[in-house]
Amino acid sequence: MLQDKNPAKTDLSKLGEFGLIEAITKDVSLKNPSTIKGVGDDAAVMSYQDKLALASTDLLVEGVHFDLAYFPLKHLGYKAAVVNFSDIYAMNGMATQLLNGLAVSNRFPLEAIEEIYEGIKLACRIYDVDLVGGDTTSSRSGLILAPTALGVVPKGKEVYRSGAKPNDLIVVTGDLGAAYMGLLVLQRENEVFKVNPQHQPDLSPYAYVVERQLKPEARRDIIKILDELKVLPTAMIDISDGLSSEIMHITHQSGVGAQIYAEKIPIDPQTVLTAEEFNISELTAALNGGEDYELLFTISQKDYEKIQYRKEFAVIGHITEEPGDFLITQDNQKIALKAQGWNALKNKPSQK
Amino acid sequence: MLQDKNPAKTDLSKLGEFGLIEAITKDVSLKNPSTIKGVGDDAAVMSYQDKLALASTDLLVEGVHFDLAYFPLKHLGYKAAVVNFSDIYAMNGMATQLLNGLAVSNRFPLEAIEEIYEGIKLACRIYDVDLVGGDTTSSRSGLILAPTALGVVPKGKEVYRSGAKPNDLIVVTGDLGAAYMGLLVLQRENEVFKVNPQHQPDLSPYAYVVERQLKPEARRDIIKILDELKVLPTAMIDISDGLSSEIMHITHQSGVGAQIYAEKIPIDPQTVLTAEEFNISELTAALNGGEDYELLFTISQKDYEKIQYRKEFAVIGHITEEPGDFLITQDNQKIALKAQGWNALKNKPSQK
Repeated sequence: MLQDKNPAKTDLSKLGEFGLIEAITKDVSLKNPSTIKGVGDDAAVMSYQDKLALASTDLLVEGVHFDLAYFPLKHLGYKAAVVNFSDIYAMNGMATQLLNGLAVSNRFPLEAIEEIYEGIKLACRIYDVDLVGGDTTSSRSGLILAPTALGVVPKGKEVYRSGAKPNDLIVVTGDLGAAYMGLLVLQRENEVFKVNPQHQPDLSPYAYVVERQLKPEARRDIIKILDELKVLPTAMIDISDGLSSEIMHITHQSGVGAQIYAEKIPIDPQTVLTAEEFNISELTAALNGGEDYELLFTISQKDYEKIQYRKEFAVIGHITEEPGDFLITQDNQKIALKAQGWNALKNKPSQK
Repeated sequence: MLQDKNPAKTDLSKLGEFGLIEAITKDVSLKNPSTIKGVGDDAAVMSYQDKLALASTDLLVEGVHFDLAYFPLKHLGYKAAVVNFSDIYAMNGMATQLLNGLAVSNRFPLEAIEEIYEGIKLACRIYDVDLVGGDTTSSRSGLILAPTALGVVPKGKEVYRSGAKPNDLIVVTGDLGAAYMGLLVLQRENEVFKVNPQHQPDLSPYAYVVERQLKPEARRDIIKILDELKVLPTAMIDISDGLSSEIMHITHQSGVGAQIYAEKIPIDPQTVLTAEEFNISELTAALNGGEDYELLFTISQKDYEKIQYRKEFAVIGHITEEPGDFLITQDNQKIALKAQGWNALKNKPSQK
């Protein structure tokens, strides 16, 4: 499934580092007023004035976070950028700049790197982020993307993981578990393809879950909506490792506990159907699957009426004073949550 | 030469990501007033107020930028941090925060990662930089360090590569070529070691050049001295790829040319002796070797008297109105400079 639509191949070693930088950055324009100087000097220069600056870095490693057998390069660049923006939104901020570290094997021609950067630049355009720097180097083996996202948040509006209070409501955006089911579908098709390279997979019944895996979006829209609704969450985190472990991050850092209700967890019908097909519980996908890049946050009960009719949000439980994180099942059993989410030190995609 | 002084080995996959983060960050303290929140949330939070913010990322890739056969892990962490600080100083700023991306094979135990972080944290202490974030993940193959340095510079004091003017003086700090000679020494000893593992290398005649390779320092002191002397360079860059290509970056971006004088280029006696031993010109090491992390800058002639008696600086030439970058040799030949510096897309260390 790796794209091969462009037969022209330019050898990186002939192009050199400066030629490569020129090829990558020739169509980069700067839009954020906070960006003073982008690519082309020793460092990017920003002016954040009285706002707080935010910075986050998340690596994507071949064979650990993705498999090029099913992950198109452009999507990979897009995803690498978006998952880093997501961390900035999770602070209630706006992503404004991106630096991209990239290590590629010499087996990649220029055109492959351009595909990766097409995805990165597309994400930057859609999310109004300026690509201001980075470093491209060769790697003796795999492909590694190491982006760093920068952002801003007005002072006093920053939201940490540590601010959840007893009786606060626990809210998630969108729906959960789809990205993980998409991964399982892609891995299955890839196994079939290895046995029979003539096999043309029909992914249409899985379009939504596959897209959630290959082209995740970060919830910038939610940060704007929360601002319009005048809701300042008490704690917030993005769901990259699965709902369970993210809830536990919030409760651990806030010194509280949580109860969530299985029936309240938003799961798309296609996720449910795909999970059935794979003989796993859709709840497991939502709790432990990860990579949904939705936002999980807590709000004071007094803010409930501001969000109750908004389709973007689902209230899934509440914060408790006593420690301990529990799922209440539909038949009213109380089960302790476990952080079984994505562990990049332990798993490779196929073992997840 | 890889250290093995600690027989205890803790398996990363048993420790898990959270255990690893705890082990790495337990002794991290924050010192910069601009750091509001460090490790432990979705993003680090900084307050730069009316100063400009700087950001830069430089990757270090196993087999491309270093070989673990001769590069101790602690030194590697130190170097990865310092080369990123160097980019901030090259803007005339002060490095204030560091985020560190790290991809490691499962073959590394916890103790190896702790060694890397010991080096990173030592560099942070020495350079007054706060370690505020990062991402640690496994890699299917090599070790990759992807740090991002953040820094600040007062508005109006930022120095770009593009500001050099005709007749400006070209100045370098410290001495050049040593780090490259250190690399050649280490590679030679490593080849001997492969043939005869009982071989105990005597590196004492090469102590300086080897240290320049294994434990480079960034020139924060120079930024403070320039400020005290009230000298604002017209252009500046750090010497990571060799003097030739750095000069060409400045002249290319400033739309000018340069003439430098071979006899003025500062080279340490040990670099000269080692170059003789390796049968290469010490000038080649200085011009094309790279990794010295000295600063190269241009100043207006009116500032000459402010720096002329300072031992930290060597005036090596001047900027010309007509384009073209030339070296004037001791026998008065005029040779065009070529950017033959480090090219991480083309070279591996042993081919450099």
